Amino acid sequence: MANMDINEFREFGRAAIDFVADYLENIRDRDVLPSVEPGYLHDLLPGELQNEPEDWKTIMEDFKRCILPGLTHWQSPHFHAFYPSQTSYSSIVGETLAAGLGVVGFSWICSPVCTELEVIMMNWLGQLLNLPKAFLNCDEGNGGGIIQGSASESILVAVLAAREQAVRRLRTQHPELTEADIRGRLVAYTSDQSNSAVEKSGILGAIKMRLLPADETGILRGSTFIQAVEEDVAKGLFPVICVATLGTTGTCAYDNLAEIGPYCNEHNIWLHIDAAYAGAALCLPEYTHIMKGAELADSLNFNLHKWMFVNFDCCAMWFKDAGSVTQSFSVDRIYLQHQFQGHSKAPDYRHWQIQLGRRFRSLKVWITLRTMGAEKIRSLIRFHIQLANRFEEYVRTDDRFEVLCSTLALVCFRLKGDDARSKQLLENITKRKKIFMIPATYQGKFIIRFMICGIDPQMHDIEYAWEEVRSQADLLLGVDENRNVAKQAIERVEPKLYEKSSEIGKITESLTGMVISSEKGQ
Amino acid sequence: MANMDINEFREFGRAAIDFVADYLENIRDRDVLPSVEPGYLHDLLPGELQNEPEDWKTIMEDFKRCILPGLTHWQSPHFHAFYPSQTSYSSIVGETLAAGLGVVGFSWICSPVCTELEVIMMNWLGQLLNLPKAFLNCDEGNGGGIIQGSASESILVAVLAAREQAVRRLRTQHPELTEADIRGRLVAYTSDQSNSAVEKSGILGAIKMRLLPADETGILRGSTFIQAVEEDVAKGLFPVICVATLGTTGTCAYDNLAEIGPYCNEHNIWLHIDAAYAGAALCLPEYTHIMKGAELADSLNFNLHKWMFVNFDCCAMWFKDAGSVTQSFSVDRIYLQHQFQGHSKAPDYRHWQIQLGRRFRSLKVWITLRTMGAEKIRSLIRFHIQLANRFEEYVRTDDRFEVLCSTLALVCFRLKGDDARSKQLLENITKRKKIFMIPATYQGKFIIRFMICGIDPQMHDIEYAWEEVRSQADLLLGVDENRNVAKQAIERVEPKLYEKSSEIGKITESLTGMVISSEKGQ
Repeated sequence: MANMDINEFREFGRAAIDFVADYLENIRDRDVLPSVEPGYLHDLLPGELQNEPEDWKTIMEDFKRCILPGLTHWQSPHFHAFYPSQTSYSSIVGETLAAGLGVVGFSWICSPVCTELEVIMMNWLGQLLNLPKAFLNCDEGNGGGIIQGSASESILVAVLAAREQAVRRLRTQHPELTEADIRGRLVAYTSDQSNSAVEKSGILGAIKMRLLPADETGILRGSTFIQAVEEDVAKGLFPVICVATLGTTGTCAYDNLAEIGPYCNEHNIWLHIDAAYAGAALCLPEYTHIMKGAELADSLNFNLHKWMFVNFDCCAMWFKDAGSVTQSFSVDRIYLQHQFQGHSKAPDYRHWQIQLGRRFRSLKVWITLRTMGAEKIRSLIRFHIQLANRFEEYVRTDDRFEVLCSTLALVCFRLKGDDARSKQLLENITKRKKIFMIPATYQGKFIIRFMICGIDPQMHDIEYAWEEVRSQADLLLGVDENRNVAKQAIERVEPKLYEKSSEIGKITESLTGMVISSEKGQ
Repeated sequence: MANMDINEFREFGRAAIDFVADYLENIRDRDVLPSVEPGYLHDLLPGELQNEPEDWKTIMEDFKRCILPGLTHWQSPHFHAFYPSQTSYSSIVGETLAAGLGVVGFSWICSPVCTELEVIMMNWLGQLLNLPKAFLNCDEGNGGGIIQGSASESILVAVLAAREQAVRRLRTQHPELTEADIRGRLVAYTSDQSNSAVEKSGILGAIKMRLLPADETGILRGSTFIQAVEEDVAKGLFPVICVATLGTTGTCAYDNLAEIGPYCNEHNIWLHIDAAYAGAALCLPEYTHIMKGAELADSLNFNLHKWMFVNFDCCAMWFKDAGSVTQSFSVDRIYLQHQFQGHSKAPDYRHWQIQLGRRFRSLKVWITLRTMGAEKIRSLIRFHIQLANRFEEYVRTDDRFEVLCSTLALVCFRLKGDDARSKQLLENITKRKKIFMIPATYQGKFIIRFMICGIDPQMHDIEYAWEEVRSQADLLLGVDENRNVAKQAIERVEPKLYEKSSEIGKITESLTGMVISSEKGQ
């Protein structure tokens, strides 16, 4: 065998599976953040590929020696930064199988199952998320779904498709304008809380992307949007698309679709919904209300690689009219033609996306969804929300902290008082590398985001995280070790006893006084 | 464990590795093309995800029952269509490990090794391909490489970066024009033989992409390009970029960089080189001449997932001035900032690409390159070229066929005479599903492309393919079974004997006469 012997592959492959199992089983033993400086790897690896082949065992040793120390452990339940990118055991196996099959799926004939399984998975997912039927391929309309690599790609596809549709329409409506004139007057909208990928899609698509101010709770409201559009129309601009967010990156706020959607529909403005994270929660009946107005959208996306146990990259995207994107992007060549082109159960997905080539991503989706089943998916997502709720309870019981907002499995909190205190707290925690959180801003204040991430987080991980936050706050706020021990001892006392004991009450009072005066001294 | 038990994962993972080993070892036993009709899978799978979890063994059975029959076997050495997308055993393991680590690498802090290994691998690859030093990060300049998903993405990134650079420059040079005016006058160039992804990049980037006529050998010549540019400049347009191809999709022709490059440099036109397939051959000293003029390019890409034994997706892209793309695409947010931003050994690759998120692709590159070593890579690529040469010899020994062009591991051939005959031959061969080839056009003629693909192709695979082509030509051209048997018997005779035996000579003559008359009767 050209690359390595087949039996060596079996050994190497099994060793990799065992490594992954051991790694994920014991992931809590590692600091979540690495201790390396930029350039560390340049000192460990040779500057050039050597001529001779190397044994897989040597490479596996080097993997442990050189690669592992440079990892930020996204699958650790002590990772609470950004948004989750949870893998799962079954998804890892799905990725392995797909790599083994090594197919590329840019058209139906390139591997019929690669296209057809994707069509079916997108229907399964649409049903699981309680999406409006109009987005599904199994409905009578022109709806349909595709797996894109990331939310960034989905957003860009929506922006570009909307742009091309608008240009076609406007050229007919405004024969007096040149195409360049029309393109120069196009304008798109999103909130200043949307992901950086939305702003970037404007740059990439050469379309002005207005970042409209969200309200004080991080939500883009209809009135703000409508006012912006009307201003622009009065200036002779052409509104093209609004990219709304269900679950903003900073604080997981939901833009008000019920206010924005009807106006978009009336005024021929494409409505795209980026539900990258929060989309997964739509599988819970108790959360479908956040989708109110989504039936008015032209397209939406959510990331299976965030919160649906499929490893990165895997982003589901639906269109209400798939023709709107294929018309915009279609380029055909003789070498891409095949007998079954245009068959509705065999869409040529290359016209729905940026790239020509396609990975067989639906395989890991199929394997993951089946090993879990709908009920387990729902109960796990509920459990992650409970974990976040528990963390929130801890924060709320500590007077030094305030919770500014919390949604799904995200809690945004801070130390009361100046931003500098929270910044310092986060910096200290990050330096210790025990848990990883990142900041955001909310209502002009610096906040710390606590997100449930990693593979299979448990209640004790929340206790671990809170202990880290609380104890670092103690240190920062100058509560010395003895006071701290005393405070903990008191907290451990049975609450009823605590209330009744006037003596303990007095100690608590005086301790609180000391804490507050020590805070002021900071 | 949330998704499945850790020991189940070990079993499932090992079963997957064993399946892949068995599948790839015995891949020649399968028809390369599937026998399914569009919609076949919709009849096999339920319309909705079930509620309960399922055992991995059940899923594995269904995988074999439902998924395998719908595959086109890209890794089969009987696959000779499109371009190769060769995986390798080590790359499959690399993909498994990356899926197990489950990291996302949009900035250095997200996993330092994910960024740093990529920097180092891009230097290893650049050296392996004998690229001009100016493209490498280890050079003094601003060069640098990144792993993109596909050639389509690389081309789009080049087009968009070139567009934004041009707009900035032109706004200064032409204060009398509006930005819309400038954007409306931008024009890009490529040949009519370049991949559909180039034309699509024009649509996506809202920039006019002129498909210039290649010469009769499929090459874009400097004179054609320069004439087009001068026409456009005379019309007041602004030339932005030329996307040249090293190894066109149809016939693997090389655009003349030495003619195009100097003009691009003199006139501030970005030169991008798409060497998706042929780039791998640059590791052979005897092929570096095809790169003449590449030192004049601003960016180039080649696909490791085509011909460098790394599974899809994995496309290497280099810039001579990485700043030109980061300036164009950069969007920063508080949640993306980190302490080591701007460090040259720790580039924030998210500014070099379309997406925010990034897979840990350099891991499979590192593992694959090391298990092979530079010499084995070179000898394998040479061997694949030899395999194609052997096929070409077979075709040339058969008077009914003609070879129109051949380069690297691609042979373009046809039956002499009307296109209809070659079309019918290809259709018949495709229906039989024993080998898979696709058509192209060359000098106005329908040609059949024979490409060396699949995992570890051997000389006997070439004999198999030629036997299929030859025997199907026999059938098509009306050589009946008896004549065919006689002809084969004669061919098997030792050539010297064959020359000397006047009797056999006469039989051959009369048989040839019959074949020709039967051809005319078709």
